[in-house]
Amino acid sequence: MHGGDLDAARKLFPGAPEPFVDLSTGINPHPYPIPPLEPQVFAQLPEPAALRRLADRAASAYGAASSETVVPAPGGQILVTLIAGIVPPGRATIFGLTYGEHARAVSLAGHEVETVSTLEELGQADLAIVVNPNNPDGTVFGAEELLAVATRIGDRGLLIVDEAFMEASVDAESLSAHVERANVVVLRSFGKFFGLAGLRLSFALTTRDLAARLSAALGPWPVSGPALAIGTAALSDEKWMAETRLSLEKSAQRLDGLLGAAGRERLGGTSLFCLVRVPDAPQLFDRLGRAGIFVRRFADEPEWLRFGLPGAEAEWQRLETALRA
Amino acid sequence: MHGGDLDAARKLFPGAPEPFVDLSTGINPHPYPIPPLEPQVFAQLPEPAALRRLADRAASAYGAASSETVVPAPGGQILVTLIAGIVPPGRATIFGLTYGEHARAVSLAGHEVETVSTLEELGQADLAIVVNPNNPDGTVFGAEELLAVATRIGDRGLLIVDEAFMEASVDAESLSAHVERANVVVLRSFGKFFGLAGLRLSFALTTRDLAARLSAALGPWPVSGPALAIGTAALSDEKWMAETRLSLEKSAQRLDGLLGAAGRERLGGTSLFCLVRVPDAPQLFDRLGRAGIFVRRFADEPEWLRFGLPGAEAEWQRLETALRA
Repeated sequence: MHGGDLDAARKLFPGAPEPFVDLSTGINPHPYPIPPLEPQVFAQLPEPAALRRLADRAASAYGAASSETVVPAPGGQILVTLIAGIVPPGRATIFGLTYGEHARAVSLAGHEVETVSTLEELGQADLAIVVNPNNPDGTVFGAEELLAVATRIGDRGLLIVDEAFMEASVDAESLSAHVERANVVVLRSFGKFFGLAGLRLSFALTTRDLAARLSAALGPWPVSGPALAIGTAALSDEKWMAETRLSLEKSAQRLDGLLGAAGRERLGGTSLFCLVRVPDAPQLFDRLGRAGIFVRRFADEPEWLRFGLPGAEAEWQRLETALRA
Repeated sequence: MHGGDLDAARKLFPGAPEPFVDLSTGINPHPYPIPPLEPQVFAQLPEPAALRRLADRAASAYGAASSETVVPAPGGQILVTLIAGIVPPGRATIFGLTYGEHARAVSLAGHEVETVSTLEELGQADLAIVVNPNNPDGTVFGAEELLAVATRIGDRGLLIVDEAFMEASVDAESLSAHVERANVVVLRSFGKFFGLAGLRLSFALTTRDLAARLSAALGPWPVSGPALAIGTAALSDEKWMAETRLSLEKSAQRLDGLLGAAGRERLGGTSLFCLVRVPDAPQLFDRLGRAGIFVRRFADEPEWLRFGLPGAEAEWQRLETALRA
């Protein structure tokens, strides 16, 4: 089960009080305010100039050298599928435990996938994927060590660095400024930091050649009119972005405090989620669920639970009460 | 240049009166009314149950046997890219002249592409594409003759039938009821008939196996929250669909009449566009452009112009005046 599937949560916990508090994702609970959308945003095919403006704003916001190295896409999943299809089927490594969709997409493209736990092993592949900072444990990798992995892979393949939670880390350093000179593809997610996951907007940052190839595969209208309009406004709003980084950090500290006070061992996280180890994780998952609070559990790590950020103060109170119970 | 690129039109005709009348696309100028959208449509990851509901409605509206044969996607382009990548590189045929993006996507996937002008030739391929009714000339193919093409291709490949303008034809017959038993993929476009091309919503209808494979390649959140919400409502609205088919036909008759009165030879069309042959097409394109009316021209057919439907009465008047000038 993925995060965010409240229908599934309601089936698991049919008597739980509504509304459910969804802490199963790592999405900012305070979305970027949606500007008024003109009817033509929905009606007309997005124009090439609007797509270029979005790529420009993304290049600035993410620190890429040029909008020609930026590929707007309707979500990160299709980008991984397309990139995995460009590398001839071979050996794929994924630094894990991590977000499960990557292994699925890469395997579907015909690669032999292995989950590895060191960067040394990660580089022994035709296609390597690392999530930085990592989801769910927040592990951060340095730019130099990741570039060394790309060098080890060399001409025979690619390193994908999924920076979906980059804005939610004070320590992590983006590789976006390095994509022009290496066999590196950086993935950025619009929806998590901006709290607008329903828009389906992500970006690949890579060499101009590969960017052109990915853009061609996506076709001339890769993202929706609403995603273009809202994405362009949001990625230009430096004030909102700076304030949001700070407020997310504050919220994450509050969440860490709540979980710590309840005696849970913090394994790591970012300012959009916190991973804890608790021996009675299945019981806690169940107790929170019955209180209408849905968190993320892990089939391969039964003692882990991941908590996203509550939004409204009432949600914080419900979490605090449920943790104490 | 694609249809709908008004920025390009403004560069070509800098002194033209605004607003431009965009007749360069085949999109319904009277969009389905957008229902109020809850904030969570933008904020949250679309839920699997909502995606299944959309596929259900699409299956009903398009006459597919089951929602398991329906793949919602963020536009038709990415579907052609993915399908072309599933068929091992070989010989691809495209019935033409037609929509140019298909040849580009298929060629990018490594196929040798040939444009053909008979169904006999179309079937001599590993991957065949036909647009039915065809864009831009409205040519309609019968279900039986298309299924015969699929039979000729057999196990070695696939026939893609792009039914983007199916709702805009009284004569054409969809293959959607036949996809379960043949190597056929039907593509349906939501945005053209419903006048909401900015939403980026299309569907592939095919065998359950291939549908599952395409869905897996697109990942668990293939379409945006707004596309899910609006698409589900619109595809359930049988009254709107029935009335719109009729009103589009009436509008198309009016357009045909205007163009006929102006002495242009009608080559064909659907109820969303009309293709005419005029010896002085470059001059007419230019004269209309300077009057702020943007139509579609064709690099390979310099005597052809394609006219989409005007929307408001004022747009009809401007077209009529400009054609008379």
